[in-house]
Amino acid sequence: MLHFEDFLPGQRFEYLPRRMETAEIIAFASEFDPQPMHMDEEAGKKSILGGLAASGWHTSSIAMRMMIDAFLGSSTSQGSPGIEFMDWKKPVIAGDTLSGFSLVLETRALRSKPGIGVVRFRNEILNQTGETVAVSECPIMFRMREAG
Amino acid sequence: MLHFEDFLPGQRFEYLPRRMETAEIIAFASEFDPQPMHMDEEAGKKSILGGLAASGWHTSSIAMRMMIDAFLGSSTSQGSPGIEFMDWKKPVIAGDTLSGFSLVLETRALRSKPGIGVVRFRNEILNQTGETVAVSECPIMFRMREAG
Repeated sequence: MLHFEDFLPGQRFEYLPRRMETAEIIAFASEFDPQPMHMDEEAGKKSILGGLAASGWHTSSIAMRMMIDAFLGSSTSQGSPGIEFMDWKKPVIAGDTLSGFSLVLETRALRSKPGIGVVRFRNEILNQTGETVAVSECPIMFRMREAG
Repeated sequence: MLHFEDFLPGQRFEYLPRRMETAEIIAFASEFDPQPMHMDEEAGKKSILGGLAASGWHTSSIAMRMMIDAFLGSSTSQGSPGIEFMDWKKPVIAGDTLSGFSLVLETRALRSKPGIGVVRFRNEILNQTGETVAVSECPIMFRMREAG
């Protein structure tokens, strides 16, 4: 289990690649973001996104899952107070294969919550041609080793 | 259809209330954010969130859907380049009923994309006791009326 003390600035966690399938893009959009360019191939091609494109919230949720599988799922994560920013830099088009990484920016103990520390991450998602499609920075809270 | 020109600073779009069910919280978490406090009642109670709590990405995706139903679904939205920030201020616990609103902050034509304008929104999600559980600000692109 990764505790707060195990995270060091500059450390990098690589995500496993994941293909974005047409069916899952449409399923997510149907539930949470039913805009034409996320639901229909033709509407996507006519839009400024240029094809059937995943909702930014879908890409962000997939990025969360990639973080879980890469390192967060075997950590003492206590969740996050929010996202500092999330840039959707390029469309994620059906059939794209995403990969990426989380980089540790800084770590600090939380005075207000003894036994908890905050780690700030920069998270980048790339497509199969190496273009960055999404970038975010966010703090995540972890239990400290001595608190256990 | 709401076009870019129809959005004015200070305008407010109210969301319809929506109850967050245990089953949907667990289903979303299983797919995108399988951390114990989003998957299991007991783990949630033991965590700093205090109960079975929705993933922040689930709350954010639900907020997206509330925006679609409130106004975005009957607009010329062309999507968003990202989120300026998203604060998850309070846990969203199974059984909570969410509501909220989007407030127009400012509007401007995009010089780089003729016929497209950007509207910046502040989006607030409240729970049934009136506490703000999530706040975000984001730009959304809309087609202009004359471009049609």
